[in-house]
Amino acid sequence: MDIAVINPNSSAAMTARIAQSISRYKAPATHLRVLRVETAPISIQGHFDEAACLPGLLDAVTQQERLGVDGIVVACFDDPGVGACREIATGPVIGICEAAVVFAKTVAANFSIVTTLPRSVPIVEELVVKYGAERQCRQVRAADIPVISLEEDPDRARKAVRSEIEKAIAQDRCEAIILGCAGMSDLAEELTRTCGRPVIDGCVAGLKMIEGIVGAGIVTSKAGAFDYPIGRELVGSGAGRGCVPA
Amino acid sequence: MDIAVINPNSSAAMTARIAQSISRYKAPATHLRVLRVETAPISIQGHFDEAACLPGLLDAVTQQERLGVDGIVVACFDDPGVGACREIATGPVIGICEAAVVFAKTVAANFSIVTTLPRSVPIVEELVVKYGAERQCRQVRAADIPVISLEEDPDRARKAVRSEIEKAIAQDRCEAIILGCAGMSDLAEELTRTCGRPVIDGCVAGLKMIEGIVGAGIVTSKAGAFDYPIGRELVGSGAGRGCVPA
Amino acid sequence: MDIAVINPNSSAAMTARIAQSISRYKAPATHLRVLRVETAPISIQGHFDEAACLPGLLDAVTQQERLGVDGIVVACFDDPGVGACREIATGPVIGICEAAVVFAKTVAANFSIVTTLPRSVPIVEELVVKYGAERQCRQVRAADIPVISLEEDPDRARKAVRSEIEKAIAQDRCEAIILGCAGMSDLAEELTRTCGRPVIDGCVAGLKMIEGIVGAGIVTSKAGAFDYPIGRELVGSGAGRGCVPA
Amino acid sequence: MDIAVINPNSSAAMTARIAQSISRYKAPATHLRVLRVETAPISIQGHFDEAACLPGLLDAVTQQERLGVDGIVVACFDDPGVGACREIATGPVIGICEAAVVFAKTVAANFSIVTTLPRSVPIVEELVVKYGAERQCRQVRAADIPVISLEEDPDRARKAVRSEIEKAIAQDRCEAIILGCAGMSDLAEELTRTCGRPVIDGCVAGLKMIEGIVGAGIVTSKAGAFDYPIGRELVGSGAGRGCVPA
Amino acid sequence: MDIAVINPNSSAAMTARIAQSISRYKAPATHLRVLRVETAPISIQGHFDEAACLPGLLDAVTQQERLGVDGIVVACFDDPGVGACREIATGPVIGICEAAVVFAKTVAANFSIVTTLPRSVPIVEELVVKYGAERQCRQVRAADIPVISLEEDPDRARKAVRSEIEKAIAQDRCEAIILGCAGMSDLAEELTRTCGRPVIDGCVAGLKMIEGIVGAGIVTSKAGAFDYPIGRELVGSGAGRGCVPA
Amino acid sequence: MDIAVINPNSSAAMTARIAQSISRYKAPATHLRVLRVETAPISIQGHFDEAACLPGLLDAVTQQERLGVDGIVVACFDDPGVGACREIATGPVIGICEAAVVFAKTVAANFSIVTTLPRSVPIVEELVVKYGAERQCRQVRAADIPVISLEEDPDRARKAVRSEIEKAIAQDRCEAIILGCAGMSDLAEELTRTCGRPVIDGCVAGLKMIEGIVGAGIVTSKAGAFDYPIGRELVGSGAGRGCVPA
Repeated sequence: MDIAVINPNSSAAMTARIAQSISRYKAPATHLRVLRVETAPISIQGHFDEAACLPGLLDAVTQQERLGVDGIVVACFDDPGVGACREIATGPVIGICEAAVVFAKTVAANFSIVTTLPRSVPIVEELVVKYGAERQCRQVRAADIPVISLEEDPDRARKAVRSEIEKAIAQDRCEAIILGCAGMSDLAEELTRTCGRPVIDGCVAGLKMIEGIVGAGIVTSKAGAFDYPIGRELVGSGAGRGCVPA
Repeated sequence: MDIAVINPNSSAAMTARIAQSISRYKAPATHLRVLRVETAPISIQGHFDEAACLPGLLDAVTQQERLGVDGIVVACFDDPGVGACREIATGPVIGICEAAVVFAKTVAANFSIVTTLPRSVPIVEELVVKYGAERQCRQVRAADIPVISLEEDPDRARKAVRSEIEKAIAQDRCEAIILGCAGMSDLAEELTRTCGRPVIDGCVAGLKMIEGIVGAGIVTSKAGAFDYPIGRELVGSGAGRGCVPA
Repeated sequence: MDIAVINPNSSAAMTARIAQSISRYKAPATHLRVLRVETAPISIQGHFDEAACLPGLLDAVTQQERLGVDGIVVACFDDPGVGACREIATGPVIGICEAAVVFAKTVAANFSIVTTLPRSVPIVEELVVKYGAERQCRQVRAADIPVISLEEDPDRARKAVRSEIEKAIAQDRCEAIILGCAGMSDLAEELTRTCGRPVIDGCVAGLKMIEGIVGAGIVTSKAGAFDYPIGRELVGSGAGRGCVPA
Repeated sequence: MDIAVINPNSSAAMTARIAQSISRYKAPATHLRVLRVETAPISIQGHFDEAACLPGLLDAVTQQERLGVDGIVVACFDDPGVGACREIATGPVIGICEAAVVFAKTVAANFSIVTTLPRSVPIVEELVVKYGAERQCRQVRAADIPVISLEEDPDRARKAVRSEIEKAIAQDRCEAIILGCAGMSDLAEELTRTCGRPVIDGCVAGLKMIEGIVGAGIVTSKAGAFDYPIGRELVGSGAGRGCVPA
Repeated sequence: MDIAVINPNSSAAMTARIAQSISRYKAPATHLRVLRVETAPISIQGHFDEAACLPGLLDAVTQQERLGVDGIVVACFDDPGVGACREIATGPVIGICEAAVVFAKTVAANFSIVTTLPRSVPIVEELVVKYGAERQCRQVRAADIPVISLEEDPDRARKAVRSEIEKAIAQDRCEAIILGCAGMSDLAEELTRTCGRPVIDGCVAGLKMIEGIVGAGIVTSKAGAFDYPIGRELVGSGAGRGCVPA
Repeated sequence: MDIAVINPNSSAAMTARIAQSISRYKAPATHLRVLRVETAPISIQGHFDEAACLPGLLDAVTQQERLGVDGIVVACFDDPGVGACREIATGPVIGICEAAVVFAKTVAANFSIVTTLPRSVPIVEELVVKYGAERQCRQVRAADIPVISLEEDPDRARKAVRSEIEKAIAQDRCEAIILGCAGMSDLAEELTRTCGRPVIDGCVAGLKMIEGIVGAGIVTSKAGAFDYPIGRELVGSGAGRGCVPA
């Protein structure tokens, strides 16, 4: 099957890291494309950045849809534009926050989330409510690092994330941790080993969820909110302008 | 005070109608600008259209902010991009769905909402949850008419809306009605008279809410989720390209 | 328009302070009456005090209704008797807790409330749920001062309130503050300046909300829960006995 | 033990009926007083009536407290003033709506409520939320009869109640019924027989709940919201003026 | 009336202690049987133990039902198997967590729960949601002691419980405490005296709730979820094998 | 990877049908075992049946765990004993209701569930709340057929299910359907074609979810509620007595 994982920001480095982290988890039969949106901000830090990435993201989804993609993962923890992507796509679409929450709820009675900047905390809290996990989510925490530091100063960033996870375990008594940024994808394995409980990366979770839904033969319902956009001509060129592989 | 009411679609006819409906409700001292987004879809019917209107909407908000606007109303019932607008704006920003819900909760123990197309019902239901009104909202209903019919076949559209309101009153036992589309703004007064209970238009509600918040000297908190966008250069030209007065 | 702001306790000093705080926020065309209920307790500190203020409050509302008032604000943060007032009144009625919560939700992703005594915390928590803001309200806090201390020892009271606000900002990571007592009305402006985020006074919020709803031409629905009381003769003299201007 | 069941309206006929219905359910050792509030409205039909009954109700509770009562039931389905009564009383206080909901949740997975007038439906719905039973409550329904008709035209009233219960069973698929008015207390036994599922009267439920809590040696917490009123002198004469036995 | 209180674990010591604690609270006319399930684990510490106790518990309930019991209390704070017991029983069945929560909500605006092991905290949190008390429950806490320590090292256990209660009062500002384990039943009276607020034992609460419901003539609804099991032959011998009196 | 799908009832026919339905959806590398619990009731129709299947189910899980299974699906729509299974298992465990709900939420804005008997409706409603999907679940419906009819009178059963789905689409305006019984697994594909929207079978959803979680390298958290049972000796023989392959 054909799966596209689209990082809706423009960072080549982050996209490469996501591609590296998740490619070894893909099913043998999965043809995986990891893409980034060249016209988008370098990182998604707030509502404005979410909005700013949308034109490129939707153009990329339109392009992938025309290429016959079977399923799509939106690889930003704010899950920007997932509803609009579902309108365009025939196959299933998932954001990495939703996927991570689903996996965490299956293997733990509760969890905390560690994201980058404090300004993203309310955005993630709202997603947690939307996904019906407010009772399982002990707390959404910020390591207080900019997204870009995950590239530019990875050691310091890793330490800040680990330190916040340790606080989450001690103070929130949480049974699992969700990494609240696609840029942390490469940290999950090591942190799982050192933290004594699942540390979940939404990029891998999203990939495996979409492989599962596609594998089950289930497509996006076109009987309501996710029906194809009415003004098809608005859907854009689908040339995937600014949409670049990892 | 300077208030901008921005219709995030590109319909000149709808924008003119909104301007006409609300201008007689403005406070004497309010300098009111009613704008539309020329680059946006002709109507907002689903998640994709919401995304498609954002670049123009945010450019318009940036322009208004530079002009020193005191408060902003986003005049589409899906409340698209309100979080991003709040990041850009210094003054308060409200969507017409939120404003209508606030006014309805103040004057009635419960209400139903009548929108245009069935595909918008889940979008509005999600907003109702977000605004904490799920216990007061009896039902979100669709008159099953395209937004554009409010311009092109106003008699038929008005009949469909009225008929759905009558069903809402009979079946939902609701004490107030909210009109679920900016394009219905001109129907509120007549329907209030004929329905025997408040029929609330979000455009007027949004204008009066923003006048009130500005009048109270309250501005948008920059201490968290609505802080100014980090990448200010991304905020766009602010030339208001495609932003056109009613 | 004619607006009555009724402080449902009997404190002349607090009523005068409310009048002073809010009068400069009123719209030019608003004829504002700030009243107190002479037969009520000197302050409202708990359920019993809420009940004790009701006969005088409802008599005052009846009187104002007969005088043709356009809208009413109940200026106690417990929002006592608002439902009963809505039955009596033709125009809109709002409590200052509801108004403050509405304004805070518009300008911030979350907020904390600072009230006076710990015994009032559960009462306010219940209101927050009723108004659908439990997800935005980080915490309801008490400065642990009696209401009357706001008159009798204003310096100490102001320090206690400010200290609790500082704790709220540090511990709750809240983006706005709501002052949980009508008697704190005069503190809002200064605290907004010093706290770096909106500090919202419900008295001003209530006044501006009611001006807005009246200005929108919206009245209380008489189609259900807020219909006029059935036993009109029970509504009392309406002589406004014990109802005294600021 | 000494239990007072206080009907907060002034109807002698209804109070007598309540006394007759519940007295055969009391424990042998219970000394039961069934009282009415002479200064209250003849029936409680809405928020205003709730407020109007409070001075007499609180005076009656003060009187009973001085007489050393062990527990109190407020026998009106709107549960008016229960918080204020809890402040005055040392022993437990319960309203009949809360008690009926507790009993229904114990013996059925869900229930519907049948009250008198439509205007009371939103009041009861709000109580159901407050008591945490919104997921078990299928629907709050009104038989559309005034409370007084239960006295003045009992045959017609009984038929209207039974008819609404039949609709609830057929349409709501509910496993139990709660009678939403103290004046329906005498109907519960017969309706339980004919309806094939529990039909619960809050007056009996309230009496048995209070006997149970008192029997468990549990009193009202004075560590917070239900501490004694601060201004004890405000609690009134406690002479029980207007408080009359059944 | 005949009431069976069934401790679904096999500890004779704990069962004896429960019997001793609650027997002085029973109504004079109550014929009380306190039983334990000999085939069950020695204590219920987690989901597996809950499942492991069920065959014996359901056999015991079947036996008691044949003996004509009027009501049943399941005396483990996880409320295991209560739904299945309700299917078997004609009379009412309650778990001690539900009963304690009901009593706490009646006498306090909020409460915290102190259980034994941290692994039980999520189980109890889920029950609190099920019983609609998530807004009143300040926190579920663990004293971090195994259940059996309540027998084997009662002094240390009592100290750990008391210490956790003190933390709950100081940090959660709770107005009442619920003891989250049947094995703590004997601690309630002393802790109530020393803690200055109700400390509620679910065993006593369960007994008094069931006496009340039985006394009200209310039985389990057989009109839905709690109808008798369809395969009656599966209900087991009802010989009460492994069911042993205290 | 090794996946066990355990039907917790004893029906050989239903187990065979599940095996047939799902085996063509498994990933090539998955070694799939479909088992039934010979000691369990022939179908799970209510809380009692859920309890009755547990000893055999847990013994089967213990056996599979010893055989080194990587993940487990509990193939009954009541999700019985999933928490207990998670304590025993190292790998992930999911029930088919949870899996179906997760998939439905990803591809549709809302859904309705069609189960067999009305008595199961409240059980499923409670699961929907537990999984945080109450806002997406339009209604839980019963086709009013016993589970066994799916074997014994498949044509009539299929017609009843289809008829209830048609009602769900017309009345609930739902965008997807979930089949609320493992025994309906073979109906999903045909119904998806005829209904114009996804009709989701939890057995396939569960299999694909577990393949995904195992494929992501995520195991059950042992840091809290799902830690291994304390009394390991209680976990049973693990001989899988009564556990029979399809």
